[in-house]
Amino acid sequence: MATRTLASWAIGLTSSTIPGSVKQAAIRSLYNYLGCTIGGANHTTVTRARDALADFCGRPTTTVYGNNGALRMDPEHAALLNGIASHVHDYDDTHLSTIIHPTGSVASAVLAYVEHSPAPTTGSDLITALIVGIEIECKLGLSVWPSHYDLGWHITSTTGSVGAAVAVGKLMHLTETQTIHAIGIAATQATGLREMFGSDTKSFHVGRAAQSGLLAAQLAKNGFTSSEGAVEAKRGWANVMLGSSDSTQKLDIYCSTSTTEGLGRTWETERNAFKPFPCGIVCHPAIDGAIHLHQELEDKAIQLEDVARVDIRVHPLVMELTSKRTPKDGLECKFSVFHSVAVGLAYGKAGPAEYADLVVTDAAVIVLRDKIEAHIDHGLRADEADITVAVNSGDVLHRHVDHAVGSLKKPMTDLQLTKNFLDQCALALGERAAERASSLAWRIAESNDVAALLRDL
Amino acid sequence: MATRTLASWAIGLTSSTIPGSVKQAAIRSLYNYLGCTIGGANHTTVTRARDALADFCGRPTTTVYGNNGALRMDPEHAALLNGIASHVHDYDDTHLSTIIHPTGSVASAVLAYVEHSPAPTTGSDLITALIVGIEIECKLGLSVWPSHYDLGWHITSTTGSVGAAVAVGKLMHLTETQTIHAIGIAATQATGLREMFGSDTKSFHVGRAAQSGLLAAQLAKNGFTSSEGAVEAKRGWANVMLGSSDSTQKLDIYCSTSTTEGLGRTWETERNAFKPFPCGIVCHPAIDGAIHLHQELEDKAIQLEDVARVDIRVHPLVMELTSKRTPKDGLECKFSVFHSVAVGLAYGKAGPAEYADLVVTDAAVIVLRDKIEAHIDHGLRADEADITVAVNSGDVLHRHVDHAVGSLKKPMTDLQLTKNFLDQCALALGERAAERASSLAWRIAESNDVAALLRDL
Repeated sequence: MATRTLASWAIGLTSSTIPGSVKQAAIRSLYNYLGCTIGGANHTTVTRARDALADFCGRPTTTVYGNNGALRMDPEHAALLNGIASHVHDYDDTHLSTIIHPTGSVASAVLAYVEHSPAPTTGSDLITALIVGIEIECKLGLSVWPSHYDLGWHITSTTGSVGAAVAVGKLMHLTETQTIHAIGIAATQATGLREMFGSDTKSFHVGRAAQSGLLAAQLAKNGFTSSEGAVEAKRGWANVMLGSSDSTQKLDIYCSTSTTEGLGRTWETERNAFKPFPCGIVCHPAIDGAIHLHQELEDKAIQLEDVARVDIRVHPLVMELTSKRTPKDGLECKFSVFHSVAVGLAYGKAGPAEYADLVVTDAAVIVLRDKIEAHIDHGLRADEADITVAVNSGDVLHRHVDHAVGSLKKPMTDLQLTKNFLDQCALALGERAAERASSLAWRIAESNDVAALLRDL
Repeated sequence: MATRTLASWAIGLTSSTIPGSVKQAAIRSLYNYLGCTIGGANHTTVTRARDALADFCGRPTTTVYGNNGALRMDPEHAALLNGIASHVHDYDDTHLSTIIHPTGSVASAVLAYVEHSPAPTTGSDLITALIVGIEIECKLGLSVWPSHYDLGWHITSTTGSVGAAVAVGKLMHLTETQTIHAIGIAATQATGLREMFGSDTKSFHVGRAAQSGLLAAQLAKNGFTSSEGAVEAKRGWANVMLGSSDSTQKLDIYCSTSTTEGLGRTWETERNAFKPFPCGIVCHPAIDGAIHLHQELEDKAIQLEDVARVDIRVHPLVMELTSKRTPKDGLECKFSVFHSVAVGLAYGKAGPAEYADLVVTDAAVIVLRDKIEAHIDHGLRADEADITVAVNSGDVLHRHVDHAVGSLKKPMTDLQLTKNFLDQCALALGERAAERASSLAWRIAESNDVAALLRDL
């Protein structure tokens, strides 16, 4: 019954029944999404896809963000490109319980539909649809986590197409049966193998999930049929995605309206976290510490060349995932705790500019990087780190990070999100346009006509 | 190395190194594909999708078959719609070792590219590309069969996107590296859950695989990157599609150029079979027998109302898959051996018209259907059946079918394929246009400019 439960819950949800804190979390997710999407718009992954698709595109009705409103494509291709851009810098949001990046697929599809829709969409309806999509993809993710990811699926896109379909369906006012069919059509398009990580195809997954979800809703609206048990059936989504037939118990927990962890009882949208740094999330605590110590070095007027050595103690996953000693380009820097800590110490920040290809050859960073020793500490939590800087003078600076900035215990403030947005978007749009886009993106939830706002982004 | 081997083999293949019998099999596959696609063009599944997509379509450069050249869409959407149409009547070809329907996805993508390509494509190049696609999808299918299908994947589409990508890539003259990336981009879009069987989404899988394959080739051509071990890696296609990590042995057998069962050694294109009847293939032997007995009844001037009872002995799978006693529409008739044998006896044929919704209420068919008793016989092969008709006069007519028409031991002749083509296409186009289309479809392999021929279909 999971499929019907999801559909029925999605249809019944109204803005007035959603807690204010959940809506606020969704507004922050949408804002952060737009920053990432604009910031990613000129990445070669996106421009390669854009060039490849040019011949196939339909009427240019829908904004491809990051071009100051100058680039439009048909809704399907806009959803694809915006979805790719949202994920390409690894700077997007993270539902920490499943490591789904939830907003990319859902927002890319929903916003594409908003510009395509014959009637204006209010910000309030948009946020409700976004919440529907995020909740459903995360509940599906929880139902198959972690075996599904371990097997090799990119969980963001395998769940994202369904979230996107239901979210778009919500704005289309699909009936329960149509929503069930939309879930099935989306579920059967299970894009995303982990083997593609490290290539253009990784962020393609997010865009394709958005596009598949939009297509699913559009087909269902036109009477296209699917299974009524797409999620829970013996050969349906959950079992196939697990590679086995043991989905029932978890579906009963998460895709239910009567359990504590179920739909509308625990809101996954509130469990969504934002990245302060555009790199592997596991090394964020160490970066957080490094940035604090940068300030201390400055305060004490200690020069970088006077640093003798740096010792970091980190959670085991840090060295499993981000242990690249000598990264060779910006992409590899994102998976190097050494580079990340070095830029934190050297510049007091680790934003998009600090992961540009150029920084790899920055002598000051390289010298510092080579002074760093990493120590695995099994006693640390994933959002915890410890960093010690020994100076030639004999001084020792130390910082213990109990909960990294961006963790659920120490969430990013709106001001920090704004700074991230501006940092990313200024690179794509210039500073003035970035500020304009930021102010506009914060206002979407209050708009009476979202499409009108989007057309300038 | 499977990914590289597939790519390298595909690039190296030339028409002159392909045995003539394989090329002939591919020509028959293409011909049969066009008949099925034109015949399926007006099915509600196709028209629903067509209506749903109208708003998204780009420049109408590519023919949607079955409309006498009057309907064109952009290449991506044409590939999708033609792919759906090719499979919607369950009348398409079957690679019996894997039950992949191999031509639908590959041909839909390749033909869409042919009309999109700046340079003319010869029939010979088209057939080579088609063979490349069919061989690769079937070798991939053999590598994961049967666990993959049992797990719940629609093997036709999960392999079809890769076959389509490589086939299109062949015509694009992609380099080896680009072909590897195309394989990865296609493999990561693994559309098709078996749970969707019985709904519009089943045939959507074939169309979506065609579209995904075309997109993959187009992206790869523009430098879009993917994994270089997409098929064989720990978290790559084969292992994920099996739901486990045990793909190595079979990949070594089938995706190799040095084994007897490998690429260019055993040609899967020659193992492709064509359906004489648009229904579940397992009940074909019984229909074959029924049609022979129809003739005998006529020869002896025995009326249908004089038939006392009919006994059929069939392979166990017949009753597992096609045991519907009282089908309620044309679609259900396709999975009823009782309906199928009844129309065979009553009309001497079981073509598309005999599976139209109207026939379900045909009193003569219903009366006859209810006189049929089915007996499972574990001693029979899948392509074998036995049928006995007892007449009120005391006469007994009997027919044992050793190998059903359409089986590999008794393949469909070109004449029989032509008759099927005409039967299907006359319903869509009228008789004269169907004859014209048939003659044109048989000539494609000799054409110097395939696109010019396609534009009238």
